[in-house]
Amino acid sequence: MITNFNSSCIISLATPNGIGALSIIRLSGYDSISICNNFFFGKDLNNQLTHTIHFGVFKNESVIDEVLVSIFRAPHSFTKENSVEISCHASTFIINKIIEAFINVGVRLAKPGEFTQRAFLNGRFDLTQAEAVADLIASDNKTSHQISLNQMRGGFSNQIKILREKLISFASLIELELDFGEEDVEFANRKDLQDLVNEIQLQINILLKSFKSGNVIKNGVPVVIAGKPNAGKSTLLNSLLNEEKAIVSEIAGTTRDLIEDTINIDGINFRFIDTAGLRETNDQIEMIGVSRALDKIKQATFILYLTDLTVTDQNEIDLVKKDFTDLNGQLIFIFNKIDLVQPEKLEQFKINFPTGIFISAHYKTGVEALKSFLISEIRKDLSAIGDVIISNSRHYESLLNTNKSLDNVLSGILNGITGDIIAMDIRHALYELGLITGEITNEDLLDNIFSKFCIGK
Amino acid sequence: MITNFNSSCIISLATPNGIGALSIIRLSGYDSISICNNFFFGKDLNNQLTHTIHFGVFKNESVIDEVLVSIFRAPHSFTKENSVEISCHASTFIINKIIEAFINVGVRLAKPGEFTQRAFLNGRFDLTQAEAVADLIASDNKTSHQISLNQMRGGFSNQIKILREKLISFASLIELELDFGEEDVEFANRKDLQDLVNEIQLQINILLKSFKSGNVIKNGVPVVIAGKPNAGKSTLLNSLLNEEKAIVSEIAGTTRDLIEDTINIDGINFRFIDTAGLRETNDQIEMIGVSRALDKIKQATFILYLTDLTVTDQNEIDLVKKDFTDLNGQLIFIFNKIDLVQPEKLEQFKINFPTGIFISAHYKTGVEALKSFLISEIRKDLSAIGDVIISNSRHYESLLNTNKSLDNVLSGILNGITGDIIAMDIRHALYELGLITGEITNEDLLDNIFSKFCIGK
Repeated sequence: MITNFNSSCIISLATPNGIGALSIIRLSGYDSISICNNFFFGKDLNNQLTHTIHFGVFKNESVIDEVLVSIFRAPHSFTKENSVEISCHASTFIINKIIEAFINVGVRLAKPGEFTQRAFLNGRFDLTQAEAVADLIASDNKTSHQISLNQMRGGFSNQIKILREKLISFASLIELELDFGEEDVEFANRKDLQDLVNEIQLQINILLKSFKSGNVIKNGVPVVIAGKPNAGKSTLLNSLLNEEKAIVSEIAGTTRDLIEDTINIDGINFRFIDTAGLRETNDQIEMIGVSRALDKIKQATFILYLTDLTVTDQNEIDLVKKDFTDLNGQLIFIFNKIDLVQPEKLEQFKINFPTGIFISAHYKTGVEALKSFLISEIRKDLSAIGDVIISNSRHYESLLNTNKSLDNVLSGILNGITGDIIAMDIRHALYELGLITGEITNEDLLDNIFSKFCIGK
Repeated sequence: MITNFNSSCIISLATPNGIGALSIIRLSGYDSISICNNFFFGKDLNNQLTHTIHFGVFKNESVIDEVLVSIFRAPHSFTKENSVEISCHASTFIINKIIEAFINVGVRLAKPGEFTQRAFLNGRFDLTQAEAVADLIASDNKTSHQISLNQMRGGFSNQIKILREKLISFASLIELELDFGEEDVEFANRKDLQDLVNEIQLQINILLKSFKSGNVIKNGVPVVIAGKPNAGKSTLLNSLLNEEKAIVSEIAGTTRDLIEDTINIDGINFRFIDTAGLRETNDQIEMIGVSRALDKIKQATFILYLTDLTVTDQNEIDLVKKDFTDLNGQLIFIFNKIDLVQPEKLEQFKINFPTGIFISAHYKTGVEALKSFLISEIRKDLSAIGDVIISNSRHYESLLNTNKSLDNVLSGILNGITGDIIAMDIRHALYELGLITGEITNEDLLDNIFSKFCIGK
């Protein structure tokens, strides 16, 4: 815990700016209730119970508004300090006058995230939970909402804490050995330690693996539409988006820029990216487009390789499989223009490419099936991960560092390294795990985390 | 009171849309607390006292958010119905999910102003007070804030109610006479009635007079800057606004459009309007500009007639005084360019025009004095009016109609008209006064008034 904790009274508008009926102004600090009482006429707020609401008049030199004041007494508030919420009419003039009244008697405007920071410093929740509050507010789809809500409610921190506690008990045994110096005793059974580290690493690896999905869900699943010129990529994008986003023409090479848009399928955001057709070209601008397309293909979770059924053959498919080797994502073959080929040819293709998806982008045939396929693949990924998904790169980095230290612990045990070195590696691992939940922290880290919050939170 | 009052449960976001920490979702209706209880996990809301706040989890199929729920029991709520306010994280996703949960069980989205309409229909306040709520939210300066706050707190309605009650007692006496038909009795003393009507008209005239100021304060005091080309009008506007709003050049006729901007001086908004220089011109666009300038001059509260001290003379001043005869506003002569004339000439002008204001727009000399002068003139107007200022054209119209009916009452008494005609005129007057406070009302009127509110109020 930080020691220079400032319990002075802070104030901020907590609700968004703009047109509405109500606005909430929030205060936190030891004196918040008694200071508010000086401006409140209706009853004596100092005598009121926590979690009660009081109607009255807010008056500085003259009456500013009729307000409802909610009283929260320490430790039963968000910040665990005495807190007040003033519900006033949503007028910028009134809000400014009320905040001004408090500023004039020494209350300070809260910095972004300062209420949440105080809640953390006062032990209301750990750092991952505090971080989840900001993620929760920013969530715009069901899955990222669930991930941040789960994190806010402590799902992730509980898992980290359990891992950390197990390690701590071993660490203390090993540190005890050091006290006995030359005597060569082993309080910490090396085999048990090895098993524990293996178990912890197993769980960390699951979490690390979940980061890819978590991050992808937070920012949208990237899906690249690739293929030769004129395969119908832009038509497919438009069909998926249900609008005319990309310019479609029969001229090969129409699309040069990366055209991108997000749609929400069944609670998950997918970022569909239309790319320039992949071909040898002398057109400078098109060349840049092709090179960018290749970059996007490498980063994507799904690569929809679109072929034109009327001209494609086994050769094209084989070449693509051979070319696209260093992909992170899943390559999916989409056979387009099923409306333009003979039924016999179509059947033959379906037999030859049982995992292919056959569509007519133009007539939107098979597009829904394609969406269902994508969503079921993502769900498969998610169910393999378990309940806890990490989506924060700070947590990812600390878990990677923990894993590195645990690797050192393991190799130390295998090579019969002395306890003091092993203890140091365990302490490194503990330190990194502690950084995640905020059991170990420093001011720069905190400032960096909370400054990303919005004002009033 | 309207009879088809609908006590079904309504819901709306009460705080503005946008980025913030908290949002408030508001419900009102007999079942609001029990319906909310179905989604709330933490404690049983049905057993909670009014004006208490409860922490828990809002859950539909899955957990949507951790929330604070405030309970207001009828009649101790804004609408006088059972009401609930849900304080959740300010995420559009969360807000939509919570509102959706209620809609799915039959709660209806509130229409704009519907909460305030219910408050009115349930007798929380009268119509002028309800209307003041919308004005209060829209207030952007101290004086219009004070007017609407005073109206919301009943200042205006009290005055109307007192006038109305006095009339009612006379009306009932006269109606009593009618019951006696042929007998020619006079329960209502005609002299007393005359005195009362005179007294009421006196007060109504004060209110009617206040409308001009009230309206002007709501929309900003219009101040036109007029004068010959090159007198320095645009320079003065820029000095007043402290920015380069109008294009200034030495070419006479630079300004053709009306350039307008609002500044707040000491709590009152002034709308300064720069006009095309007044001169005979053949330039078509400039001619339109001059004609618009003349219109604005007629509507303005203040006309700042700017002259160039280096070229002006008694003749110009006299002509202006003669030309500007049908003004509503106050004509003020401003002598510009004091930096460019000899001290002796300046002194002579000051002696000849003791009410003139002498400035250098270019060097901003005397501009603050001009502002002080304007604000003191407006304050003079306001103090002559008294505490109650009307700013609503609906009220203005009803007061005008009341006055007309009272004129008829007076001429009826003077001409010895029979009681039944006088009674009818009194009833008309009572009807119009009742329309203001909402004691007499109809649904169209209400819909019209409340539809101008924002959603959630």
